[in-house]
Amino acid sequence: MSAGTSALERDWTNPLRDPRDKRLPRIAGPCGLVIFGVTGDLSRKKLMPAIYDLANRGLLPPGFALTGFARRDWETEDFGQVVYEAVKEHARTPFRQEVWDRLAEGFRFVQGSFDDDDAFDRLEQTVADLDRIRGTNGNHAFYLSIPPSAFPVVCKQLARSGLSSQQDEQWRRVVIEKPFGHDLQSARELNGIVNEVFPEDSVFRIDHYLGKETVQNILALRFANQLFEPIWNSHYVDHVQITMAEDIGLGGRAGYYDGIGAARDVIQNHLLQLLAFTAMEEPTSFSSDELRAEKTKVLNATRLVGPLDETTARGQYTGGWQGGELVRGLKEEEGFDPNSKTETYAAITCEVDTRRWAGVPFYLRTGKRLGRRVTEIAVMFKRAPHLPFDATMTEELGQNAFVIRVQPDEGVTMRFGSKVPGSQMEVRDVTMDFGYGTAFTEASPEAYERLILDVLLGEPSLFPVNQEVERSWEILDPVIEHWAAQEDGPDPYPAGSWGPESAERMLARTGRSWRRP
Amino acid sequence: MSAGTSALERDWTNPLRDPRDKRLPRIAGPCGLVIFGVTGDLSRKKLMPAIYDLANRGLLPPGFALTGFARRDWETEDFGQVVYEAVKEHARTPFRQEVWDRLAEGFRFVQGSFDDDDAFDRLEQTVADLDRIRGTNGNHAFYLSIPPSAFPVVCKQLARSGLSSQQDEQWRRVVIEKPFGHDLQSARELNGIVNEVFPEDSVFRIDHYLGKETVQNILALRFANQLFEPIWNSHYVDHVQITMAEDIGLGGRAGYYDGIGAARDVIQNHLLQLLAFTAMEEPTSFSSDELRAEKTKVLNATRLVGPLDETTARGQYTGGWQGGELVRGLKEEEGFDPNSKTETYAAITCEVDTRRWAGVPFYLRTGKRLGRRVTEIAVMFKRAPHLPFDATMTEELGQNAFVIRVQPDEGVTMRFGSKVPGSQMEVRDVTMDFGYGTAFTEASPEAYERLILDVLLGEPSLFPVNQEVERSWEILDPVIEHWAAQEDGPDPYPAGSWGPESAERMLARTGRSWRRP
Repeated sequence: MSAGTSALERDWTNPLRDPRDKRLPRIAGPCGLVIFGVTGDLSRKKLMPAIYDLANRGLLPPGFALTGFARRDWETEDFGQVVYEAVKEHARTPFRQEVWDRLAEGFRFVQGSFDDDDAFDRLEQTVADLDRIRGTNGNHAFYLSIPPSAFPVVCKQLARSGLSSQQDEQWRRVVIEKPFGHDLQSARELNGIVNEVFPEDSVFRIDHYLGKETVQNILALRFANQLFEPIWNSHYVDHVQITMAEDIGLGGRAGYYDGIGAARDVIQNHLLQLLAFTAMEEPTSFSSDELRAEKTKVLNATRLVGPLDETTARGQYTGGWQGGELVRGLKEEEGFDPNSKTETYAAITCEVDTRRWAGVPFYLRTGKRLGRRVTEIAVMFKRAPHLPFDATMTEELGQNAFVIRVQPDEGVTMRFGSKVPGSQMEVRDVTMDFGYGTAFTEASPEAYERLILDVLLGEPSLFPVNQEVERSWEILDPVIEHWAAQEDGPDPYPAGSWGPESAERMLARTGRSWRRP
Repeated sequence: MSAGTSALERDWTNPLRDPRDKRLPRIAGPCGLVIFGVTGDLSRKKLMPAIYDLANRGLLPPGFALTGFARRDWETEDFGQVVYEAVKEHARTPFRQEVWDRLAEGFRFVQGSFDDDDAFDRLEQTVADLDRIRGTNGNHAFYLSIPPSAFPVVCKQLARSGLSSQQDEQWRRVVIEKPFGHDLQSARELNGIVNEVFPEDSVFRIDHYLGKETVQNILALRFANQLFEPIWNSHYVDHVQITMAEDIGLGGRAGYYDGIGAARDVIQNHLLQLLAFTAMEEPTSFSSDELRAEKTKVLNATRLVGPLDETTARGQYTGGWQGGELVRGLKEEEGFDPNSKTETYAAITCEVDTRRWAGVPFYLRTGKRLGRRVTEIAVMFKRAPHLPFDATMTEELGQNAFVIRVQPDEGVTMRFGSKVPGSQMEVRDVTMDFGYGTAFTEASPEAYERLILDVLLGEPSLFPVNQEVERSWEILDPVIEHWAAQEDGPDPYPAGSWGPESAERMLARTGRSWRRP
């Protein structure tokens, strides 16, 4: 770090660290990272910029090494140029030449395909050289930014070449991205393949939602405060709505999405993880074992509510106006089957069978081409058991709500009733806001910064274990099977709306309705 | 109301009223108001403007009559001119000629002194004429905007002249302003004098704090919502701080204040009433009987905590800098005894002996020449019973707080811990705000508008009854006596500070501290 660091830069660096102060972030020890699928979108838009940002924040070890592996006929210089452009375009923190120069010294590129033994032997040699030249000390993480179909061959190659085997005092870790299978059976097979080569405590499954500040803040809000936990149960909560709405469509993503759909793509991972954070009991500490034990416990207690005909909804967007733009329906998107039955909207009803939550519905919904992009957890409270007001005075009083805004506009909103100015005791809903962006001068790191650093630190709290992944499929599978057994496809809904009418009916049957976030 | 009422004006008028809609304010029936002490400050700055504002909002009956009584050698026209100037200068709503003209037709002035039988006979005749000419139907309120020492003679005159006696279907009411005595005994005597002439349900004691929207909103917040009541008790609340701080000094108020002091002037009425609203149980409805019963109940359960040497504090401001201005101390203020022992700062500790509140201290403080003008109720919560965080991560986490801002900047603030952005689970206090001014387009009526209308409607909820007044003195008297028995006077504190050091010690003895609001 240069001596001339400005005050502005100091906001996101840590020039002076006292190792006794646990509030200062820990720095990764000597290590390297190998990325498979380094030419892909995720790598360029998220991983490379996050690595630079970590380096810029002083959180990577001096001899850190980044190795790319791909079929492309590149030299290390070409790879460096690709990283450079990715950093210039997507990094969160300012570009500093001296940080870049030091980081780039650790770049390597290995050319090859996944079935090429020689290439993996060269990779093994490269890694061994790095240990010698850069001091990476035998500590290496392998990031599989590749389709799941390639996991078996890459895992086998890592085992064959010896790359996956760790000596004493060294570590080897594997990072995998969703989809973690497409149902319980395929997830088990995939976990089996990975676990054959890497023990479970060396497997880091990335659900980037768990890297978001606002998601981790669910735990801080619930367990650092006295105010909320006493009302966080079935005595006071009427129901919970967990929403991940996107306004974008699926143009260009047919290869991945057609046949998969919204439930598998979002509910199985992101939304069930948000449910777990919202509903779990307090761990005695945030150690990864205790945190994961509580998440597993609450997922084990989570079950679907039926009949699925009435308690779930699925939809597929049709053409329509969205944000002043005329957009096409899924069936007209490039690459999609014109008869596609893939759902782009999915909603399910769960209950959590614990003393705390019994009888409280958790409604989970997600969709593409909805009214606007928003992810939120809305805890909706029962009405007060008695209202000492004239009935006409509370006509505009709704349910109290506690809303955690995951993105965008991260923060918390509370809705409650307040007296309307005037001579009568009339009550109307008002809101109270806390905005993450205005409350803190600290910038929020990107989810991938947090998660890559955690991989290098060996801090597994924010990564779902195989049990969680499999349990989530177990919860969701009956819905997928139920839908697949129907003759009709998903209900159409126009782009820019809030989903199909069946989604409204799904809540209306118990006298409830979705929030318009 | 003119046909040409603009949209702007409609915000504070009610041109279209459906009598079945209870949310619309009720209009007073035929009646008149007599003000004694009509030449005083309160009358000009608060009462006259409030009466005009009520007329402008359409809440007074068409034949409403306002009669002034004073020694001043005025004709009704002179009186009208004084009201006109007061309205022009202090009214909240815009001036409208047609409203003024109609209101002014009901003005009368009676010249005389309180011991002048003839004057009261003329007043009786005036009132009788009003019944005939303006249709006030024998319904009259008498507003005693006069020193308590004049209450006996005026009450006797009202009785002698027959003004206080009501026929069937008519009403006569008396409105009195604090001070309601200066200790329990004098309060009982005063109540005896008033009640000899007016039955208690015809007596309206004005504590203008109870007319404030934010004070009434305490009840709406607590009892219209599900969110707050579950944590509103000794399980979760550590203590409550009720503060009324003023930045002004006492220049020009020696006649009233010297010898009275802050405890009698503010704690006995405003602060104990705020305590009652904060701590009371839920009434089954907001009918005045049920509301007053709950207030009386909670005041009966309220008691001082001793030893008074340590649990109370008193101070007197000395000269100093306040807001960039050099101001003088109380002893140098015009009219004050240079050896005055009158306290300008007072703080006491109470507890409420109910199942809900046992063991929770309520700290009440008030003072002149403090850091800034603010009235607030701060409910301070215990720390969470267990924090699953590393201890270093919660160093900047204080107590959760729920603060009702009574004035200025009316609203609610919640303080709680939130995760600090970054790789660690560090927690820091943040706040969440609800502002009355931004949440509602409805303008807040002045406290006196609300209270005068309630007098004319015979709606007594917001007026303390004699029991409450006497009980409040009973709570406070031991403090006054304790202080009076000390050789030393109050502790000096510099103008612009937050009171004497003894006030800090009073909380520090149990490890607590005052909020800096």
